[in-house]
Amino acid sequence: MTRHHFQPTQYANVIGTLPAVLEIASGDSVVTTTLDAAGTDHDGAQKAPRGNPMTGPFFVTGAEPGDALLVTIERMTPNRATGWTYSPLAPGVLDPAILAELPKRERHEWAIDAKAGTVKLLDPSPRIRDWSFPLAPMLGCFGVAPERGQAISTATSGAHGGNMDYRLFGPGATVAFPVQAEGGLFFLGDGHACQGDGEIAGTGVETSFEVEFRVELRKRQRLLWPRGETQTELLVIAAGRPLDQPLQFATTEMLRWIGEDLGVDAVEASHLLGQAVRYDVANVFNPAYCVACRLEKSAITQGMSLRGKG
Amino acid sequence: MTRHHFQPTQYANVIGTLPAVLEIASGDSVVTTTLDAAGTDHDGAQKAPRGNPMTGPFFVTGAEPGDALLVTIERMTPNRATGWTYSPLAPGVLDPAILAELPKRERHEWAIDAKAGTVKLLDPSPRIRDWSFPLAPMLGCFGVAPERGQAISTATSGAHGGNMDYRLFGPGATVAFPVQAEGGLFFLGDGHACQGDGEIAGTGVETSFEVEFRVELRKRQRLLWPRGETQTELLVIAAGRPLDQPLQFATTEMLRWIGEDLGVDAVEASHLLGQAVRYDVANVFNPAYCVACRLEKSAITQGMSLRGKG
Amino acid sequence: MTRHHFQPTQYANVIGTLPAVLEIASGDSVVTTTLDAAGTDHDGAQKAPRGNPMTGPFFVTGAEPGDALLVTIERMTPNRATGWTYSPLAPGVLDPAILAELPKRERHEWAIDAKAGTVKLLDPSPRIRDWSFPLAPMLGCFGVAPERGQAISTATSGAHGGNMDYRLFGPGATVAFPVQAEGGLFFLGDGHACQGDGEIAGTGVETSFEVEFRVELRKRQRLLWPRGETQTELLVIAAGRPLDQPLQFATTEMLRWIGEDLGVDAVEASHLLGQAVRYDVANVFNPAYCVACRLEKSAITQGMSLRGKG
Amino acid sequence: MTRHHFQPTQYANVIGTLPAVLEIASGDSVVTTTLDAAGTDHDGAQKAPRGNPMTGPFFVTGAEPGDALLVTIERMTPNRATGWTYSPLAPGVLDPAILAELPKRERHEWAIDAKAGTVKLLDPSPRIRDWSFPLAPMLGCFGVAPERGQAISTATSGAHGGNMDYRLFGPGATVAFPVQAEGGLFFLGDGHACQGDGEIAGTGVETSFEVEFRVELRKRQRLLWPRGETQTELLVIAAGRPLDQPLQFATTEMLRWIGEDLGVDAVEASHLLGQAVRYDVANVFNPAYCVACRLEKSAITQGMSLRGKG
Repeated sequence: MTRHHFQPTQYANVIGTLPAVLEIASGDSVVTTTLDAAGTDHDGAQKAPRGNPMTGPFFVTGAEPGDALLVTIERMTPNRATGWTYSPLAPGVLDPAILAELPKRERHEWAIDAKAGTVKLLDPSPRIRDWSFPLAPMLGCFGVAPERGQAISTATSGAHGGNMDYRLFGPGATVAFPVQAEGGLFFLGDGHACQGDGEIAGTGVETSFEVEFRVELRKRQRLLWPRGETQTELLVIAAGRPLDQPLQFATTEMLRWIGEDLGVDAVEASHLLGQAVRYDVANVFNPAYCVACRLEKSAITQGMSLRGKG
Repeated sequence: MTRHHFQPTQYANVIGTLPAVLEIASGDSVVTTTLDAAGTDHDGAQKAPRGNPMTGPFFVTGAEPGDALLVTIERMTPNRATGWTYSPLAPGVLDPAILAELPKRERHEWAIDAKAGTVKLLDPSPRIRDWSFPLAPMLGCFGVAPERGQAISTATSGAHGGNMDYRLFGPGATVAFPVQAEGGLFFLGDGHACQGDGEIAGTGVETSFEVEFRVELRKRQRLLWPRGETQTELLVIAAGRPLDQPLQFATTEMLRWIGEDLGVDAVEASHLLGQAVRYDVANVFNPAYCVACRLEKSAITQGMSLRGKG
Repeated sequence: MTRHHFQPTQYANVIGTLPAVLEIASGDSVVTTTLDAAGTDHDGAQKAPRGNPMTGPFFVTGAEPGDALLVTIERMTPNRATGWTYSPLAPGVLDPAILAELPKRERHEWAIDAKAGTVKLLDPSPRIRDWSFPLAPMLGCFGVAPERGQAISTATSGAHGGNMDYRLFGPGATVAFPVQAEGGLFFLGDGHACQGDGEIAGTGVETSFEVEFRVELRKRQRLLWPRGETQTELLVIAAGRPLDQPLQFATTEMLRWIGEDLGVDAVEASHLLGQAVRYDVANVFNPAYCVACRLEKSAITQGMSLRGKG
Repeated sequence: MTRHHFQPTQYANVIGTLPAVLEIASGDSVVTTTLDAAGTDHDGAQKAPRGNPMTGPFFVTGAEPGDALLVTIERMTPNRATGWTYSPLAPGVLDPAILAELPKRERHEWAIDAKAGTVKLLDPSPRIRDWSFPLAPMLGCFGVAPERGQAISTATSGAHGGNMDYRLFGPGATVAFPVQAEGGLFFLGDGHACQGDGEIAGTGVETSFEVEFRVELRKRQRLLWPRGETQTELLVIAAGRPLDQPLQFATTEMLRWIGEDLGVDAVEASHLLGQAVRYDVANVFNPAYCVACRLEKSAITQGMSLRGKG
């Protein structure tokens, strides 16, 4: 149950089978830092090429293909006082017929006040001077080495996780990834101070963070997609295009999870999902969109756990 | 401000420019009944062909193309003690690769206890005997006559409303429809006692209702899609396929609404949406899918209203 | 086997159960005229509102729901010397990221030379002065009244036909529509002098025509989508979004057709389609996209016919 | 202009920056062999894991990011007398509602007669005993190392090429790939003896080949997607989901190509595409679908070339 402190000196713009920066054990936690999506650190210095440079990978002793690697985000502390977004909204989330009327997308700077818990534009026009959003940190991109020895750009996502940009993946959330390579090889980065559903600006409020996470290994879980848990919710997240596809994948994996953990058949699991399912559009901007299939924790879901039935 | 009591004797399986069953004035309310999606009434008698038969249309004095017809769902009382669903889940919400493994979709009966506020399977297996869902009535299909003299099947939806199957359209919600025909011609039906996101079973818990609604006319609003309001939320709902398309339409209309009512430009409106937007998958089953673009009411959204700036 | 001459005096912007303009018998042919998509006739006079005004409907004696109405396009003669298009391409067929760089879509005029068999811009810049395209007339929008008493805008398409905008639907082609209403109620219009795949400019070269067509009734065919035949091809056309959906519908109906007419099972029919199928993107512009699933006529397909096995 | 003979001894199931098996020069040709999609060679021996194992990569002297690597498929000779497919059709190309009615997908064996130029089922039922398809070899999967040091599964495709499964990529075709890594790093495999549009069975007739190809390097072409040329056609191929997306990408790149090589603006290029474009559904089975945007060679396209204007 070691608590490691790891200061990264190099970063990766792909998630794949790369040399590990640190070996850790199931139960350990790590305090480290992440760059922003453009490769900038707490001092505003560019330390890696733009495009979600990752801290890691962390090798987890004993992790093998077929296992689940549970990662709990213990804490995310912004380590600088500014972030940035793009505006107006990304072309893909608007009616194509109006795109020609919009101004060019440009970068905007934001002030992050960790004490006050607010995120505000640095230089707003008078009419929106009072606009303020609650600080709600989340990890945009994190995951494990994918199958077949692939190395996949941190611009996109898949069964290995990656650039999911899901606003519920903040402090307190646990995500279970399907391990595909020896040691799992966990990467993280691309923190956001705040983000709506879908990452429809093409960014959250992008900034650098100090992050503490903890890992736990569960053998032979054979997950097909990442599963997650918050204080109040159970969820599966999946990736693809159009939005229909990750919704199909996430729903199918949730049906499987319900069946396995509650010991019910597909018809019974369908009753639960049909009456109680919730969907979140995690991102509708990246090359692969992500949809989360959620169930609020309740008397019915008591038997479901990221840790399996074992 | 008349409160009408209207007992339907005929129903429509399209939404279009049909002879009105009653003329009402802006501010009036109507107490009426709706059949379930299969055409069955409170006694279990089939009164119309299956496929969301509608009560209506109601002609609203003075309504003209370009106006907004606001409909508030004042009350929905189930008028029988049973409902039905299909299970397992609809093929379109699952990974096509697993469909061959699932049993055939069949009808299941549910008990609706309006006093206890619960919905339960009538004949559950022992292992799910304790499953109970909260009664949460909603109107699956309602709307106004569409443009160009069209008559559109109640299986589908569009800018006129129709079969949106959105679980937030229950008691207390107000929906503003873009009027396209003289009198607006409002239809309603297809009530559900309960339904998760997306109507992924292809049904909610389908039953018949006594419904009370109130109408309000706002001149010259030129809505492109239905807008809505609940106690805590502002929203736009749009229809299309794949899910990306109604998301684009709803986001574009919300951007327009923010701009008009808050007097901000597209860049500023994008800041709000980028950090605060929520999406709901209303239905991902019908010929046209529906997505709602939502904003929680806040200090920022105070100036926004279904009733326009006028 | 009467050859009717019908001069329209009114037009419809929906396809639905409207009063017939003429009753004809199976085997009859009709010589008539069609307006262009903007409602303009051979003299350049606007005779109906824009949006694919239709000539018809023609009532075919004895046609009942479940029958197939075969329509052969015998001849299409442009009846004026000009047509028009829009340019640049429609937003929906381009990468959303470049749309802001394109000029506004505007109307362009073309010269149609029926004798030379050419279509050319009326006022080209010097560098494209020599560009000429072969005259290849086609009907953009035609079909029969849809099911359930619907009246559907001529902007879109469905199982009833409608605005399919498929370039193979020109002289010599026969299309079999699934009859849904008494008399079938056949409508036609929206002729193009020339059009590439997908109608990606949002138009073909739009103009008015003299059209001769012939109808043939086949009882109890229970088609799910229109089927078609040219001198060298058999095809099914279907509508939906995204393109994946009409491709699925058309492939499924083609699988059914092969099974019925060749007496093979789904595995055998799949061998034929897997090795020999062709797809055409008919339109990727309208509210519903259309895809055709085609088989070149061959020794294998000899037993397949629009006229069924009866 | 060397003609290399290369006998592979190892294979790759990703396309990425791997150690080269041979360095060749622009203008050189290579005679080599490819395994079938399941990793089986001319003797039926499994030489690599299933999933499109690749021969290569070939390092092309002087190739740098921004260049175009032109690959001409000079010859494809099946080097065994059998191939295989799956049947019935892939779930993703059929209406989800009928999938439960279809038998399980199974492997079927085919006889390939290179002399007769035919492909036939090895053990057909009597009723399809006479079915025969023309031998029409094509490379299903080939391409160059992708950007950012990625290593991408040969199950899928992208701007680097990969598993495009396009039936026009057979002998005589030239494909220009955007070089992203030093030496380009060209891989090839997954030959099909025959395949319809879309690879809708999830396979062509999969077999092993002797392949001869020739490479040519063109400096600084900055292609965004692979471009291709056959004796009669010019084309761009792109990848994504749903089909709408690769159609958008391919059309956008074709618009760019026309503009660059013919010296016309976007409005003029749109006239050409609007009247003359053709689309092919290359594959609608793999994780990324591929669509080709084609123009038949004509007087208008004379100035267009894979080799650029230089």
